[in-house]
Amino acid sequence: MIDGKTQLFGFFAHPAQHSLSPLMYNITFAQQGLNATYLAFDFKTDLAAAVASIRTLNFGGVNLSMPFKAQVLPLLDEVAPEASLIGAVNTIVNQNGHLVGHSTDGAGFFAGLAQQDQQFKQAHLTILGAGGAGLAIIAAAAHAGFTTVDVFKRQNSTYATVAAKLAKIAAATQIAINLHDYSANAELTAAIQQSDLLVNATNIGMGTSQELPLPLAVLKQIATRTVVSDVVYFPQETVFLKAARRLGCPTYNGLPMLIQQGALAFKLWTDAEMPIDQVTQALEQQLYQK
Amino acid sequence: MIDGKTQLFGFFAHPAQHSLSPLMYNITFAQQGLNATYLAFDFKTDLAAAVASIRTLNFGGVNLSMPFKAQVLPLLDEVAPEASLIGAVNTIVNQNGHLVGHSTDGAGFFAGLAQQDQQFKQAHLTILGAGGAGLAIIAAAAHAGFTTVDVFKRQNSTYATVAAKLAKIAAATQIAINLHDYSANAELTAAIQQSDLLVNATNIGMGTSQELPLPLAVLKQIATRTVVSDVVYFPQETVFLKAARRLGCPTYNGLPMLIQQGALAFKLWTDAEMPIDQVTQALEQQLYQK
Repeated sequence: MIDGKTQLFGFFAHPAQHSLSPLMYNITFAQQGLNATYLAFDFKTDLAAAVASIRTLNFGGVNLSMPFKAQVLPLLDEVAPEASLIGAVNTIVNQNGHLVGHSTDGAGFFAGLAQQDQQFKQAHLTILGAGGAGLAIIAAAAHAGFTTVDVFKRQNSTYATVAAKLAKIAAATQIAINLHDYSANAELTAAIQQSDLLVNATNIGMGTSQELPLPLAVLKQIATRTVVSDVVYFPQETVFLKAARRLGCPTYNGLPMLIQQGALAFKLWTDAEMPIDQVTQALEQQLYQK
Repeated sequence: MIDGKTQLFGFFAHPAQHSLSPLMYNITFAQQGLNATYLAFDFKTDLAAAVASIRTLNFGGVNLSMPFKAQVLPLLDEVAPEASLIGAVNTIVNQNGHLVGHSTDGAGFFAGLAQQDQQFKQAHLTILGAGGAGLAIIAAAAHAGFTTVDVFKRQNSTYATVAAKLAKIAAATQIAINLHDYSANAELTAAIQQSDLLVNATNIGMGTSQELPLPLAVLKQIATRTVVSDVVYFPQETVFLKAARRLGCPTYNGLPMLIQQGALAFKLWTDAEMPIDQVTQALEQQLYQK
């Protein structure tokens, strides 16, 4: 029950109202016996005022999503190295008004695979898309056991910027990162054939879309040992994951990433553990009516 | 259950953590089936930033208490007449970012008495103290059926300011308001003897205090028909109310005022009714372990 001492945590994004984070964290606060509650705040502008309110209203912590992950950096007192490297923050820790930005997306992605006993060493990653989720995963790849990453991205207006960001990540994490045009099917085929992990980090296949993030003919060149993961978690099995599963690969959707990035944020805020199984069950029920 | 659409309401004060308002409003939201939650925010400074957050985070509404009730006026877009008259706001309504300040304390006080079948016509009020609660009650007295108010206040640094405020209230509400020095026992005796209602609007008698807000010899001059009320609600029966009860007067503590000022705020925010009996029962249990 909420009383005068209940501490507020929040989610700042637009859109925010369909976020699963309130469910995820409120289950966790209840299970851990913490007097706290987590609400979503849906707004488009005034991020500076919202960040000021973290201090004034003494939020325990905040998560951010679109369109604020990059905008928030100059508003913080400190940015952790992994967030600074990708120029994006998804978690703010409020240390008595001193606001520290973190990114738990990349580490959360690999924790989600590790939770399902998929761990890597001296490994090769092929990743489709280099938006927010993609960059976070690439930046966390070295720590997760990867030495080479092949990134496939559309030749659009952000290509040069992303190339520079990847060079920075490669230098900082001391791995080889090769950027390719998304339409270079021969390069994509070669990369996938050598990969231990193939990740769709685009939103292709989300919702009712029946689109594949790569040509089926290319995907068919994959080895059955290659782990295939999607950052999308709705539908539970995208057409991409379904195709990969039919080709014999172990496949994983984006829900463990969502939960593990939250567990890492929760750990930063409270130093306590999220009850992963309980949260997974609740989110699966909410998402897939299980 | 809180989800991504849950709307936040809040209490801004210092101290705030022992407020009963979260309990009062959260029971009400649940009973009314509203997807909203109410939290207390305890801070000393940065009221301007907190008020900005009402807009940014889209609070449904906010209550204020010490030390913010007067400070907040210049930060609002509009101030309702009853709040403007006393220079204090306890309730902010957020109309799509347009913030309107109200004061529900005075009307709440008289609604609390009316709830207990105490209503007045052409009546005389004697009130002890002219702080925030006292001024709110005095400003609402005309509407509650009073034509004359005798106010007793200590001769301290705020005496002249309060005199000016009372003159303004008298002019606006067209009743007679007489300000007296609190130590003028003959005047106090004369006023009480003529009164339909005697109110303690000081905090004398709160908590473990065994102090009376007036000399027992003066109180003994009261007629048994005179209604006696305290704005204090803890203890449930102050020594003042106990003495008045023993003298044969009907007595009422400050809890109905607390609840009714909340019910009026809730009505302003949602146009719905607070379940008074259910809230009273919960607050009595919390306060008096009933």
